[in-house]
Amino acid sequence: MVNSGSIELETRGHADTHDVTAQVQDRVDVSGVRSGLASIFTSSSTSALTTIEFESGALDDLRRALDEIAPQDREYKHNLRWHDGNGHSHLRAALLGPSLTVPILDGQLALGTWQQILFIDFDVRARTRSLVVQIIGEA
Amino acid sequence: MVNSGSIELETRGHADTHDVTAQVQDRVDVSGVRSGLASIFTSSSTSALTTIEFESGALDDLRRALDEIAPQDREYKHNLRWHDGNGHSHLRAALLGPSLTVPILDGQLALGTWQQILFIDFDVRARTRSLVVQIIGEA
Amino acid sequence: MVNSGSIELETRGHADTHDVTAQVQDRVDVSGVRSGLASIFTSSSTSALTTIEFESGALDDLRRALDEIAPQDREYKHNLRWHDGNGHSHLRAALLGPSLTVPILDGQLALGTWQQILFIDFDVRARTRSLVVQIIGEA
Repeated sequence: MVNSGSIELETRGHADTHDVTAQVQDRVDVSGVRSGLASIFTSSSTSALTTIEFESGALDDLRRALDEIAPQDREYKHNLRWHDGNGHSHLRAALLGPSLTVPILDGQLALGTWQQILFIDFDVRARTRSLVVQIIGEA
Repeated sequence: MVNSGSIELETRGHADTHDVTAQVQDRVDVSGVRSGLASIFTSSSTSALTTIEFESGALDDLRRALDEIAPQDREYKHNLRWHDGNGHSHLRAALLGPSLTVPILDGQLALGTWQQILFIDFDVRARTRSLVVQIIGEA
Repeated sequence: MVNSGSIELETRGHADTHDVTAQVQDRVDVSGVRSGLASIFTSSSTSALTTIEFESGALDDLRRALDEIAPQDREYKHNLRWHDGNGHSHLRAALLGPSLTVPILDGQLALGTWQQILFIDFDVRARTRSLVVQIIGEA
């Protein structure tokens, strides 16, 4: 069985972080899948998905690391060509990746106690984002 | 068909590395799936999965790179809030990611000759870890 | 339904980049799957997959970042042991990861307008690479 859904988010960009765990679990509940996979995907080249303990300390630490790996105020070839100022956003998104797959056991996302699903938007302006949530498995 | 299983590991933390390829292949064998996907997931925010040539040189190089990107002896906001000393562990885990999906062809994980499934535990103490292995596909 | 296929590529190594979006979509078309997942995997420990806006600026920016994180002209334990000069290739591949999962909606890969599937070969010589494309879902 495959169940397709989406999660809509209003984001501010600049490494804006969103805990989407509850929304993904809602999609699992709606699907009726008890055993399978939840695949979450951001259809964008300037945002990414991973898991983290969603608390302000760990989020700040992640932002600092990405600021160091891909600082905003640096010369990017992407910016020289396109003048949209989000070269660092593209780089960060490519490094973290757009997809995350989480197992479903007994109808629940098999996350750890201190582990949440993080969506992070690296773009330089507010946007409406849509995540694709594909649930695949057995009722 | 969905087959759910797990792999239990005793880990020492501090970027302790484990080759779990044989255990995942065991799960594939038990499932009877001949064509599909093996999705491996660590239900933790201080450990991660990827693939690597599992030999001591490449593993040392990976540890050095992560020591540089996220040194243990640095100030982390996570540590200032929670005093558990594993801010660098959270950061490394978020950057590498908790999930890995490997295709199954003719009942075998479609890995390269020099490619193994790496579980790496970044926490600062010994733990018992449980990986979720979800096999999905056709017999 | 599971449909297995592959994509063959001639690569030059040294962070050689390939947009494989059209080939993956071809595999989706052949499979007849309208709703599901496309899982792409490189059976290699010196190459990786992610998504990016596939234009020369963003690609150059990604190469520069990886040159900084894992420079070729540095001492690697892998090279000291095996003398094949691709220690940096192994490191980059492990950091980016070998697998990518993209949802399929209405028979189409659910990618963003400016988002393509990137295969990047970090090895130090020309090679023939084979990507595994596993399509799973419903017609």
